Amino acid sequence: MLNMNTCQTLNSLFSPKSIAILGASNTAGQSGAVPIALLLEAGYAGKIYPVNPRQNTIYGLPCHACLSDIDDAIDLVIVAVPAAHVLAALEKSRPGQISNAVIFSSGFAEVGDTGFQLQQQLRAFAQERHIRLLGPNCLGFINVRTHTYATFSPAPLNGRLPAGDVGMVTQSGAFGAYAYCLARERHLGLSCWISTGNESDLDVADCIQWLVDDPDTNVIMAYIEGCKNGDKLKRALAAANNASKPVVVTKIGRTNSGALAAASHTAALAGDDAVYDALFKQYGAIRAYTIEEFFNVGQALSKWPRRSANHNLAIISISGGVGALMADEADEHRLNLPTPPDEVKARLLARIPFAGANNPVDVTGHALTDLSILLDTSRDLLSTGNYGALAIFLAAAGSSETLWPYLQELVSVLHTEYPDIPLTISALLPPERKNVLQQSGSMVFADPSVAIRTLSRIMRHRPAMIPAVTDGQSSVSPPEGVGALNEADSLALLNNATIPVIPFAVANSASEAQAIARRWNSPAVMKIVSADILHKSDVGGVKLGIKGDQAVSHAYDDILSSVQSKMPQAKIDGVLVAPMRNGGIECIMGVHRDAVFGPVVMFGLGGIFVEILKDVSFRLAPFDRGQALSMIQEIRATALLSGARGQGPADIPALADTLVALSRLAYEQREYIESIDINPILALPEGQGVLALDGVIIRNRTAQPVN
Amino acid sequence: MLNMNTCQTLNSLFSPKSIAILGASNTAGQSGAVPIALLLEAGYAGKIYPVNPRQNTIYGLPCHACLSDIDDAIDLVIVAVPAAHVLAALEKSRPGQISNAVIFSSGFAEVGDTGFQLQQQLRAFAQERHIRLLGPNCLGFINVRTHTYATFSPAPLNGRLPAGDVGMVTQSGAFGAYAYCLARERHLGLSCWISTGNESDLDVADCIQWLVDDPDTNVIMAYIEGCKNGDKLKRALAAANNASKPVVVTKIGRTNSGALAAASHTAALAGDDAVYDALFKQYGAIRAYTIEEFFNVGQALSKWPRRSANHNLAIISISGGVGALMADEADEHRLNLPTPPDEVKARLLARIPFAGANNPVDVTGHALTDLSILLDTSRDLLSTGNYGALAIFLAAAGSSETLWPYLQELVSVLHTEYPDIPLTISALLPPERKNVLQQSGSMVFADPSVAIRTLSRIMRHRPAMIPAVTDGQSSVSPPEGVGALNEADSLALLNNATIPVIPFAVANSASEAQAIARRWNSPAVMKIVSADILHKSDVGGVKLGIKGDQAVSHAYDDILSSVQSKMPQAKIDGVLVAPMRNGGIECIMGVHRDAVFGPVVMFGLGGIFVEILKDVSFRLAPFDRGQALSMIQEIRATALLSGARGQGPADIPALADTLVALSRLAYEQREYIESIDINPILALPEGQGVLALDGVIIRNRTAQPVN
Repeated sequence: MLNMNTCQTLNSLFSPKSIAILGASNTAGQSGAVPIALLLEAGYAGKIYPVNPRQNTIYGLPCHACLSDIDDAIDLVIVAVPAAHVLAALEKSRPGQISNAVIFSSGFAEVGDTGFQLQQQLRAFAQERHIRLLGPNCLGFINVRTHTYATFSPAPLNGRLPAGDVGMVTQSGAFGAYAYCLARERHLGLSCWISTGNESDLDVADCIQWLVDDPDTNVIMAYIEGCKNGDKLKRALAAANNASKPVVVTKIGRTNSGALAAASHTAALAGDDAVYDALFKQYGAIRAYTIEEFFNVGQALSKWPRRSANHNLAIISISGGVGALMADEADEHRLNLPTPPDEVKARLLARIPFAGANNPVDVTGHALTDLSILLDTSRDLLSTGNYGALAIFLAAAGSSETLWPYLQELVSVLHTEYPDIPLTISALLPPERKNVLQQSGSMVFADPSVAIRTLSRIMRHRPAMIPAVTDGQSSVSPPEGVGALNEADSLALLNNATIPVIPFAVANSASEAQAIARRWNSPAVMKIVSADILHKSDVGGVKLGIKGDQAVSHAYDDILSSVQSKMPQAKIDGVLVAPMRNGGIECIMGVHRDAVFGPVVMFGLGGIFVEILKDVSFRLAPFDRGQALSMIQEIRATALLSGARGQGPADIPALADTLVALSRLAYEQREYIESIDINPILALPEGQGVLALDGVIIRNRTAQPVN
Repeated sequence: MLNMNTCQTLNSLFSPKSIAILGASNTAGQSGAVPIALLLEAGYAGKIYPVNPRQNTIYGLPCHACLSDIDDAIDLVIVAVPAAHVLAALEKSRPGQISNAVIFSSGFAEVGDTGFQLQQQLRAFAQERHIRLLGPNCLGFINVRTHTYATFSPAPLNGRLPAGDVGMVTQSGAFGAYAYCLARERHLGLSCWISTGNESDLDVADCIQWLVDDPDTNVIMAYIEGCKNGDKLKRALAAANNASKPVVVTKIGRTNSGALAAASHTAALAGDDAVYDALFKQYGAIRAYTIEEFFNVGQALSKWPRRSANHNLAIISISGGVGALMADEADEHRLNLPTPPDEVKARLLARIPFAGANNPVDVTGHALTDLSILLDTSRDLLSTGNYGALAIFLAAAGSSETLWPYLQELVSVLHTEYPDIPLTISALLPPERKNVLQQSGSMVFADPSVAIRTLSRIMRHRPAMIPAVTDGQSSVSPPEGVGALNEADSLALLNNATIPVIPFAVANSASEAQAIARRWNSPAVMKIVSADILHKSDVGGVKLGIKGDQAVSHAYDDILSSVQSKMPQAKIDGVLVAPMRNGGIECIMGVHRDAVFGPVVMFGLGGIFVEILKDVSFRLAPFDRGQALSMIQEIRATALLSGARGQGPADIPALADTLVALSRLAYEQREYIESIDINPILALPEGQGVLALDGVIIRNRTAQPVN
């Protein structure tokens, strides 16, 4: 890892005062020509130095044979020569001359071992010279505000998009070029557009971090295929969250087929999708599942940065049926549709006696004969202060010449009076008119269901509370050694980490077992203690509900003889004796270590809920009580814990505290612990806490620091 | 109900040879002017008779003072006079002169009681004169092929849509007008466009039925807000299914749970919408949840009527990342992505060494430098015969002038060679180009995820197997009387209907109870028998696991004294004695009667699965084994029945048989039975059948014929 101050350095990359182009060309369309043509056409204010030993001038600019021929410091070198020549061309610079390089060239890590070696050499050279690299195998970037077109994508040649406050970063060049065109078509203004390619140095997280610090960026759109450095991505998302710059993210590979396709496509690790989901939830990023949603949400966030925290939606429709369809969508996406106040209803009904005056408000086709009804009703609704957004359905009205002026007025008046209330118009409109309304302050969706879905994404989004992670003194000593801990050691370690476990002791003789069992006024559970035995019941290693000295003694002998005959090689550490505990609801808590994001905590109910219904939730460790509570509420069977079926509620606060403690243990011991299974852990009735009945901790095979 | 032959009559409605317009007008835009303008402009070949006592000519046609002044039989009267004058104007016709009327006028049932009375008078008059009515309060209809514009929607004035094979019927006029414009924008050809309004006579089902018989219609799009005659809708959907004319339906109100007045548990869970869902599943209709999906699916079905039954999709993308996004969507919608044969892969890799040759096929940006790669790869894939559809993602390539000719060739060649293989192109294209490609035989979607979703809807659709419903001799006598049957009578009735129930008998004394309990070699269950007691346990009316004469005798006395003290008014019919049965998986089966669609059967697993997870499935009664099996497979916890968790599988065939038997009972006794709850019914291990342990049947309050 390079250890420079990212932002300082990246300013000179993304807003360079001087640019050299290696492989500069006069041939329109070539990768060494496109950026020069774009920089000149857009009026880039810095210096441009074409480099090509076989040319005198390029696009009218004097051409240099190599970098060292340029008598200037170069903020940015654009590299458009074949992979084999990249390093040699860069090596011709003077030490300290270059600050950053964007490598368009393909033929590096993406093509296999030889390319990977080339990329490593390039990376080593850049590190030595303190040069930051974007790419290789990338489409480069565009800083729209400073007219810095460091890309060979021909997309801007067909029309440049407007400057705006949305920063876009993508790992896929092909997607990036498409996204540029989509943004242009939508008149979505961008601050910066960045493609990261092979990420030999700078990755998506670095770019997000820079966009967070970029004063021209307020919303970040990130297209992610995979991530190699989880901590960096967490930090970048946390920085965006804390700076109130929402991040919309599309992450491919959410299903098996997608993950397979992603893995074959990118050198990055696709990772486990549930882990990415947890990441985005915890770090306040909004996940979009389609390209259309990605853009709808990004554009809406940019349009209404000061929208209020309000889940109440008002719907006005000229068709009652479509209004109901919109209400279905609102319900499904958990938006409320509060009824308007009586005086608002009365005013509408006085003008249209057969209007539907509830919410959705059905103004009927009559509203098209007097469009002031639409404006008046909208104002009436919004003036209540009760609605966080307004969605209007106008069917084909937008294509009527008579109604068009009223429609424009409607949008611009509402935008002027309620600039922070998201407003969507659903109507059949030609593209020009759609854009007019969008420029006036609304969003336009042909399909009203998409309008509602988009509104729900931005209305329901809240910045996350991200707890500061301090690597303080751990309360627990690291579990030395490798492989599984036996149950007694596992439970002891959990207990030290303030996770309540069943009282127990380990007996090494039948009489010890008897003495232990006598401590509690209840039948005993007895289990073989051996790190070599994962499935204790299968080898006769578990006895339940044992009452009285004699039974305990028999059980002890039975367990030992059964295990010794069935697994003669297993190392036996004794027999664990504990009191039987019934009641409460069986839960499962677990930890596994994700290769990219470190320890991940799982929660679910026991038995079929986990095995059949896969009804579990995940969070990255560590996390706080708020996240723990939402883990518990997120499972489908959560009502069982809060007291459905006539039973009292379980001790949910204690469950949450235990999840938090488990997440701290997992995080603090992440170098030493590979996985933890607590199964079952009883959620006892309210006020009575939780109790882990069994636990297995598997230690890291190598016990090296994770990062 | 009118009892004419629908189709015969409706031909003269939808393809009239003569049309009279009541309230004909010369004022452009008025409802009495629009249809005449449209009929003349479109070149309607039949006779047009304007009727208006205050005019001599209308649009150059001689005008008549009233209907009887017309010396001709009138196939269709278009009524565009105010509600109060409609009946009087129609009454001026000669008996037998008019066959059909379309009533545009509003002010009928939709405005309350007075309007409803008007509508009833209109309906009575029409019945007497054998006139079929469309409306009132409707936008009318258009028969595109015969140029019959019996509508006052101004939509066709701004451009008429092409003739095609999609018949559209809508209950909402506002939606209908919008849909007309959407279809025109998409160049979606319609055969007929029908708005049904208040449905005083003809309803959506009648129109579907007519479209089924219409030789110009192959696909039916239906927009439904509600339905009053369930049997008619079933018959229409069945007719469409059996004629292989797929029906795409949008039904609003999917999140409104509807009236939950019914006492039984099943009814509360069902809601209205679950019943519609069951209807559409059983009758082979495809439900669309948004307007966009409604049109996408309708258009795709029309385009590829002979597509094969194949869930294998091929994806070609110029971006690996977007390919993975498409794979995600395919996976989520249960399409398979089989890998191409080695020789296909080899041919591609020979041309693009770094292509992704699996499926999704990533042809990379190189494909844009030689578009023959796209065509060759597409042909290679389709020639395997292994793929049911092909989805291509081309990013912004469509807007490139150089590539545009190749893109046109790609689509038209593939369409010529594989006309029955659905082909989607996802690319950023201007509307004209989009239409060119759509006319050449593909569908074009800006968002590739929407392309995949649309493909999945048509590739996964299969005509339903709809069993013929015969009202034969019922094997069970109707349960006379009203209200709840007691448990003993309920179980006996179920048993007669071939539903296996636990053996039992009813005791009226402690010694009778002892005698009964001795029949079985297992502990007894004893339960109070009383139709007045729904919650037997709550009043001490249930005892489990009773062993021995003395215990049986005690239990008998305990039950009686407890029930008598807690519910002194309850009529007691004795104490039911049965053997304890354990093992198997507890299931629930239920029946409730939907007001529109009649008896609905529910299936689920017991306890939390129903109460907390609402994990249940529904079908309209009666149904066959295939539907019963899919009910069982549809619940989320279905794996529990097929032997997850190391247990053997349950007797799923017996479960299915029992559901079929229950559905027959519910259907045959639909006039007498309001609801049935069988809870629990044990699903025993494979080969051992099922066993109902408890049952409650509630008889119809009035016991009148349902229909």
